[in-house]
Amino acid sequence: MTSAIPACDTEGVHALLERGRALATPVLRAAVGRLAAPMDTTAAYHFGWIDAEGRPTDGDSGKAVRPALALLSAEAAGAAPQTGVPGAVAVELVHNFSLLHDDLMDGDEQRRHRDTVWKVHGPAQAILVGDALFALANEVLLELGSAEAARATRRLTTATRKLIDGQAQDISFEHRERVTVEECLEMEGNKTGALLACASSIGAVLGGADDRTADALENYGYHLGLAFQAVDDLLGIWGDPEATGKQTWSDLRQRKKSLPVVAALAAGGPASERLARILAADAKSESETAGFDEEEFATRAALIEEAGGREWTSQEARRQHTTAIEALDRVDIPPAVRAQLTALADFVVVRKR
Amino acid sequence: MTSAIPACDTEGVHALLERGRALATPVLRAAVGRLAAPMDTTAAYHFGWIDAEGRPTDGDSGKAVRPALALLSAEAAGAAPQTGVPGAVAVELVHNFSLLHDDLMDGDEQRRHRDTVWKVHGPAQAILVGDALFALANEVLLELGSAEAARATRRLTTATRKLIDGQAQDISFEHRERVTVEECLEMEGNKTGALLACASSIGAVLGGADDRTADALENYGYHLGLAFQAVDDLLGIWGDPEATGKQTWSDLRQRKKSLPVVAALAAGGPASERLARILAADAKSESETAGFDEEEFATRAALIEEAGGREWTSQEARRQHTTAIEALDRVDIPPAVRAQLTALADFVVVRKR
Repeated sequence: MTSAIPACDTEGVHALLERGRALATPVLRAAVGRLAAPMDTTAAYHFGWIDAEGRPTDGDSGKAVRPALALLSAEAAGAAPQTGVPGAVAVELVHNFSLLHDDLMDGDEQRRHRDTVWKVHGPAQAILVGDALFALANEVLLELGSAEAARATRRLTTATRKLIDGQAQDISFEHRERVTVEECLEMEGNKTGALLACASSIGAVLGGADDRTADALENYGYHLGLAFQAVDDLLGIWGDPEATGKQTWSDLRQRKKSLPVVAALAAGGPASERLARILAADAKSESETAGFDEEEFATRAALIEEAGGREWTSQEARRQHTTAIEALDRVDIPPAVRAQLTALADFVVVRKR
Repeated sequence: MTSAIPACDTEGVHALLERGRALATPVLRAAVGRLAAPMDTTAAYHFGWIDAEGRPTDGDSGKAVRPALALLSAEAAGAAPQTGVPGAVAVELVHNFSLLHDDLMDGDEQRRHRDTVWKVHGPAQAILVGDALFALANEVLLELGSAEAARATRRLTTATRKLIDGQAQDISFEHRERVTVEECLEMEGNKTGALLACASSIGAVLGGADDRTADALENYGYHLGLAFQAVDDLLGIWGDPEATGKQTWSDLRQRKKSLPVVAALAAGGPASERLARILAADAKSESETAGFDEEEFATRAALIEEAGGREWTSQEARRQHTTAIEALDRVDIPPAVRAQLTALADFVVVRKR
């Protein structure tokens, strides 16, 4: 395949995602291959390269939005897309480190239609392989030995700290009865925005961009991340399990204080108040929602929608999408690359999985 | 206090450890203070700065061998001890990240005479705060913004990967009936040697030392780490619980394939064979050793000693100590600093905790 992507419609976006996957995956696999046994196998299972019995699969290894962004980001700074590859790999490693640990902390049993690592290989492997992927991310960048790589690692480290802050906030919200919309947006900015911001600037940093350009690209990625997460929150309640690979009403089962819930609670009015009473009773009873039937969740989802939480979150995704695109105005980026970054932002808002 | 340490006898070593603590702790506390709530509190508990109820303590925060090494390492390269401080802090952060995760993976309930973090604050906090300390380690170094800091971070990353490899090997050994002495030494070199190697060179790297000097200091630290671990393995079986803060027969309770056990099994002879039969029966029964009485462990310890495992491990500590000191011959180090590095190595071998 060639590395130049001409169009920027839906087909163009798929070509961008495919290019990111094609250039980053071999380097990612080589990096993961450096891990000592049995961590290499556990990691390969997590990435969907082998099944639980160790047989090769052509499994689903995610949307690969981050590698696509890292490559475009290099081009935004006038460098070749290949310049962004170590950045793409490092960001993917950090992303997957956080998935391994978050799934264990949250007790999530399924990801990408498969049992999570802690379910298959045990909690110790999930912790250890997560740690190893995090270390590997820094290694992949720092072994480049350049000043640009050190700057990129510093930005990645900052993003990782925010990612961890976001997970801490997310966990603390589950024990609280009320969370404000602002708190929820801050958490999502940390948990999703920061790493997408890093993905969107890391290629440019590796390509020698100045801080102003890198900051503008980070800003694009940050708001893209908030749009991404708003859509994720919608899919977490109303998504098609076939497409998302998660259970129906996934976020409601986990009592997540996601945007639609928080916005519905903040809206006021009869549906909002009824929802508040139901969730307060849930919190008091401390009972597991796992025993609820589908109808219980359907009722909650309907109340969230009636209170306006679904519509507000859809609008929020569009607002963040607009802010992301506007960030690109503040720097000089080749028009074709700008069109592709815009197309990728469009894709994030319309996706079904 | 002044930062110059004149003597290098026992008192001199305590002054070196105290200097490391005094210079590194305020910077460490400031770094940990950057963590978002409740991670800052959990970390402060782990470091022994507050108790489980959040009250300040003047608790035991470890021997602080690593900070002392990092400061000496700067002086070895002709720099001021203060130059090594960010390195000391970064190494302490990585060390404590690994303690938080290892205690959870190993199910250890006590450390430094107190309940471990996962016991007090839950597994999710242990995972999350460990991750945060690891990220913070890189942040503390990379924000220096120098080429030396990038080199130091790269060495720290390599050491961290080895640390994780070592923990993976340690876990896998618990499920195996036989482990060779060579495998055990490799595991201990990864788990303990790599980070002490990094502590012993990181100050020099920050002080602008060339790779040859840094490598020689790493070599010193690596063998010092192996001596340190051999002594730890002895204390893990025959240590005084009052001094170590661990349970009696701590490593036997956890079925650790530590050096004395592995050496005893490799020795042959009646005691070795009887020990092998007992451990094989343990492994088959899959029963928890927690139900055993003290006498059961005393029998195992006596067999290990009779088979020569205790003596071999003592000798191994002395051999590694000698190799460590010899590594210092390969570089030009100020004689006073060399004497202090030697005194610190002596201390590691004679310590009781």
